[in-house]
Amino acid sequence: MKTRIRKATLEDFEVIYDVLCHILDEGTTYSYTREEMTPERSLAYFMTAPGTHCYIAETKKGEMAGFYTVRPNRTGRGGHVANASFIVHPEHRRRGIGRKMGEHALKTAKKLGYKAMQFNFVVSINEVAINLWKSLGFSVVGTLPKGFRHASKGLVDVHVMHRFL
Amino acid sequence: MKTRIRKATLEDFEVIYDVLCHILDEGTTYSYTREEMTPERSLAYFMTAPGTHCYIAETKKGEMAGFYTVRPNRTGRGGHVANASFIVHPEHRRRGIGRKMGEHALKTAKKLGYKAMQFNFVVSINEVAINLWKSLGFSVVGTLPKGFRHASKGLVDVHVMHRFL
Repeated sequence: MKTRIRKATLEDFEVIYDVLCHILDEGTTYSYTREEMTPERSLAYFMTAPGTHCYIAETKKGEMAGFYTVRPNRTGRGGHVANASFIVHPEHRRRGIGRKMGEHALKTAKKLGYKAMQFNFVVSINEVAINLWKSLGFSVVGTLPKGFRHASKGLVDVHVMHRFL
Repeated sequence: MKTRIRKATLEDFEVIYDVLCHILDEGTTYSYTREEMTPERSLAYFMTAPGTHCYIAETKKGEMAGFYTVRPNRTGRGGHVANASFIVHPEHRRRGIGRKMGEHALKTAKKLGYKAMQFNFVVSINEVAINLWKSLGFSVVGTLPKGFRHASKGLVDVHVMHRFL
């Protein structure tokens, strides 16, 4: 399927927020609650906070198929490492959107001058994500035992994944 | 040396902020910059943000010898894991203040209902800290390669440390 990736604009936020809420309700990948991820907080976290770069994947028809955000993982003396979040629209799963966004995000982070990319919270039973990141050169550099309360599986481990750029 | 640990009050913030600035200027343990750690941000981060519990260690003479903060490491589906920050006053180092605060923080976190405590950013060449945390039951569960730009040593690894409560 043809997908293009472009910089997100404020006009994209409504659909971004809808998809985010859907994903949070699933309770299988992100730790955040709906209560804390208000529209204001979500807008800052995914789009407008300093150093935050949001891109969306769009189908040929102009439908949003997913989005990702690159941001500093830490500032200051840890500011050379990027963090990124990826969300694929539930109706566009298993079509390679995640991989396409991952590859794009690595280029984006490199262009921004980052030396590495780190994911702090990859749920260990999310095999699709872990295999994707491994195939893109990431490795598991840490495992947080029982760090995530999965909506159906209870407490499961969480991986920290990392690659240099 | 006799030290007591008590809950910090807003009146303690001035000395807490002074010590924090001193530590950030050293550039050997925390990633944050002075620019971002404004008084407002620091007050929220160490004392007043939701779920944040700050204690200070005080000498018999009433001098602040150090402080620590326990907070949720994440919220929502990761909210059962505590995070904590510890800062010993530079003039009170090597007197067991860190250990005393560490033991107190573990009790505080347990009382608050947390199931584990996690440190996300322990600089790998900070042997005093690593040995202290290991002796208090923490283990290194991850290592972020070259994650910290140390003021004099350049890029060094960072450990993630964890223990159940």
